[in-house]
Amino acid sequence: MNSPIDFYFDFSSPYSYCASTRVDALGAELGRAVRWHPILLGPVFKQIGVVPLVDVPIKGRYALHDFARTAALFDIPYVHPQKFPVATIGAARAMLWIDAQHGAAKARDFAHAVFHAYFAAGQDISQPEVVLAAAQQAGLDAGAVAQGMQQDDIKAALKSGIEAATARGVFGAPFIFIDDEPFWGFDRFDYIRRWLQRRGPGAAA
Amino acid sequence: MNSPIDFYFDFSSPYSYCASTRVDALGAELGRAVRWHPILLGPVFKQIGVVPLVDVPIKGRYALHDFARTAALFDIPYVHPQKFPVATIGAARAMLWIDAQHGAAKARDFAHAVFHAYFAAGQDISQPEVVLAAAQQAGLDAGAVAQGMQQDDIKAALKSGIEAATARGVFGAPFIFIDDEPFWGFDRFDYIRRWLQRRGPGAAA
Repeated sequence: MNSPIDFYFDFSSPYSYCASTRVDALGAELGRAVRWHPILLGPVFKQIGVVPLVDVPIKGRYALHDFARTAALFDIPYVHPQKFPVATIGAARAMLWIDAQHGAAKARDFAHAVFHAYFAAGQDISQPEVVLAAAQQAGLDAGAVAQGMQQDDIKAALKSGIEAATARGVFGAPFIFIDDEPFWGFDRFDYIRRWLQRRGPGAAA
Repeated sequence: MNSPIDFYFDFSSPYSYCASTRVDALGAELGRAVRWHPILLGPVFKQIGVVPLVDVPIKGRYALHDFARTAALFDIPYVHPQKFPVATIGAARAMLWIDAQHGAAKARDFAHAVFHAYFAAGQDISQPEVVLAAAQQAGLDAGAVAQGMQQDDIKAALKSGIEAATARGVFGAPFIFIDDEPFWGFDRFDYIRRWLQRRGPGAAA
């Protein structure tokens, strides 16, 4: 009875994209379901008073290099987006609606399509038509998604989801909780494995 | 004829400490010498306008947790220092003097003693007597080190070393260059291996 992995991500975060291609395999390896939680880094950064990585001098240049290099090292298709970062509120809302209406598997198909559109196919996912095309790729009706993502309860759900994430300690993305243990970054995947091994099978919650 | 690995670190950086315990083994594994470069994160952060990790709300709490956890996952003795971070200018200057007078191997012995004093033995390495005790542990004469670390040329060497580091793209620690490829963080050690494998042996500089 292992508890699920909670996976927090922003659709315009390159390391979130890398994590999105591996997190379900990690879950399978560890015998755990994965719950996907779209968040928006903008409000999170504003709350804690940090600036996006790429806006820091020197560090930003390194980050751009490391995004593409990390993807290459893990065989993940990656073309750095011309417009970066972009607003992902539409994609996040659409995902929450899809999850509520069609379940987590469909929502995940949609998320993969959005990530791929942005980081591999050179599309601007801040544009509603790109979000809706991703929904169609996941087998969903674009018109229904277009309406659903505008619903007040969906807007409220995203807002409260982000608040719950920061309350839990999320300050960046990707961010993972496994048995309430926090791990920030795609580069912590191996640490998760090590951490579980150290803790021993008897301690699995 | 592999070129050496350049290893930049600050004596009060926990991830630098972790890296210091593994970087020579990494060099041996990759058939490369390792050049150790003490820097000071204070002036580096000031130059690029970032605040230390532990001063960021939420993120700081996670960082403290991740320091100790990372050390534990790699079997590195770690007791988070009561006073953190501390000024490491004395230790850095002493190391440069030891390197100049007694060579890189002695300087490295000294560096290990300083890191251990701070992150395992609960000592305040901003205090000259702690720095000198580390020098003695490395088989050096404390009086000579005390004089050497005050020399103007040593002070200038540290300053220009930090300037050269930032000019090269260093914005944090640990920071590694291997064939001019930059890697930031102890968590990039595996990426270095992957990167070299991908590049293939024929491409070794």
